[in-house]
Amino acid sequence: MFNRAEITFLGTGTSIGVPVIGCDCEVCASDDPKNQRLRSSILVKTHEVTFVVDTGPDFRQQCLREGICDLNAVLYTHSHSDHVMGFDDLRRFTVFEDEQIPIYAESETMERLKASFPYIFDGENRYRGYLKVDPQVIEGDFKIGEIDVTPLPVTHGKVETIGFLFSSGVERLFAYIPDAKELSSEAMDRIRGIDLLILDGLQPGHHPTHLSIGEAVELAQQLDVEQTWLTHFSCRVNYEALEPRLPDGIGLAWDGMRIAL
Amino acid sequence: MFNRAEITFLGTGTSIGVPVIGCDCEVCASDDPKNQRLRSSILVKTHEVTFVVDTGPDFRQQCLREGICDLNAVLYTHSHSDHVMGFDDLRRFTVFEDEQIPIYAESETMERLKASFPYIFDGENRYRGYLKVDPQVIEGDFKIGEIDVTPLPVTHGKVETIGFLFSSGVERLFAYIPDAKELSSEAMDRIRGIDLLILDGLQPGHHPTHLSIGEAVELAQQLDVEQTWLTHFSCRVNYEALEPRLPDGIGLAWDGMRIAL
Repeated sequence: MFNRAEITFLGTGTSIGVPVIGCDCEVCASDDPKNQRLRSSILVKTHEVTFVVDTGPDFRQQCLREGICDLNAVLYTHSHSDHVMGFDDLRRFTVFEDEQIPIYAESETMERLKASFPYIFDGENRYRGYLKVDPQVIEGDFKIGEIDVTPLPVTHGKVETIGFLFSSGVERLFAYIPDAKELSSEAMDRIRGIDLLILDGLQPGHHPTHLSIGEAVELAQQLDVEQTWLTHFSCRVNYEALEPRLPDGIGLAWDGMRIAL
Repeated sequence: MFNRAEITFLGTGTSIGVPVIGCDCEVCASDDPKNQRLRSSILVKTHEVTFVVDTGPDFRQQCLREGICDLNAVLYTHSHSDHVMGFDDLRRFTVFEDEQIPIYAESETMERLKASFPYIFDGENRYRGYLKVDPQVIEGDFKIGEIDVTPLPVTHGKVETIGFLFSSGVERLFAYIPDAKELSSEAMDRIRGIDLLILDGLQPGHHPTHLSIGEAVELAQQLDVEQTWLTHFSCRVNYEALEPRLPDGIGLAWDGMRIAL
């Protein structure tokens, strides 16, 4: 059913992206496009729907780079600035008066979106060219077209955030967890033995609110995942130096990378 | 005193930038870099201070392009998303615990910044690597280093916004008014006969909340301005086609353009 479906990594960078403003480290100075990272987000296309997870400040740039002209839905993992501040650029997907785009977020994230972009939610600006949204508060599993979406609670420092498991009936397609320090037991149970996992792996060293690459590798192996792609990298991740050192079945994603589902 | 001072246009685009997501017009498809516009902002450098006016969603990209590594202050014209949503990316200018950056905004704009980015203002996140600001509510003229700054009230559709007049003692350096439909009589009086004006000139045709190019040209001539650079353009502005048709002393700015003061 999902032939020709694919995931595109719109960004694989942490909150400040790579290169980092004012940083002269070897990764920030690198010419390797796999070391250049916009803020984390993925695009998912199936034969019937196209959606993104998160719209950080680079969202317009990501749409232009990937030629995104249609979107059926937007999902949010949490309300940190690097995941939401491109929200207004969704306006290009609801140009006409009668168009609106469903946005899926947990209650707290939706409230933050409303506080940051009140003019989009107050009902007064439903003109041509403005962003018009259909807010859907996530309270459990939901569907986008034929895809079943399951929110996966994870912790990320002081905030609770969610990842998503995407399924088609009994078939689990993949899970996306870009910001996590620990996975809830519920999330672990849902993704154990999955074929494809995209997981936070900030950097080689320890970080209080993100999984390190070592922690992410250990977690993926514990969970018996077939293929894991790490994402949400800082400039401490030098693609060429690190990629060959990862175990089989675990890789570093890069901006623009596509995975056929 | 201001030798080697200059203005750099970080962006000359309207709210959605150019190219526009999903638009196939000749300007959006153009290879001319003068038709490629990030969201409007300027960088001002003098021998003693460096500051920007507005930080839209493209702010990180603009800093990387122009190699901006130091900033002494940030000024805001108003709180529309295309002028503020890159706010968090200022964190790279306050890396250390004891660093903070002064931000200047009128009361309403400051309140919107606080509502959109509460974690930056709540006093709890003054760590290394986070953005730490010194909020300065504009209530009249103020100084950045030796430069006198005068807020210029203008209307921009339903919102009141401000432009800025920058002076050095009795010498008026330039005025920057990126979003305006009408200038207040106070603003008109302050900039009449000025040498250098940067002014909203959205597009050739009428728009309810922005000066058209024709209106901006008329206004600049009425005000007897020596040199005017228009900015904040939509994709209806084709640089190569329009620029030669403008009167002497009026030009179209472009991203990356520099003006020596």
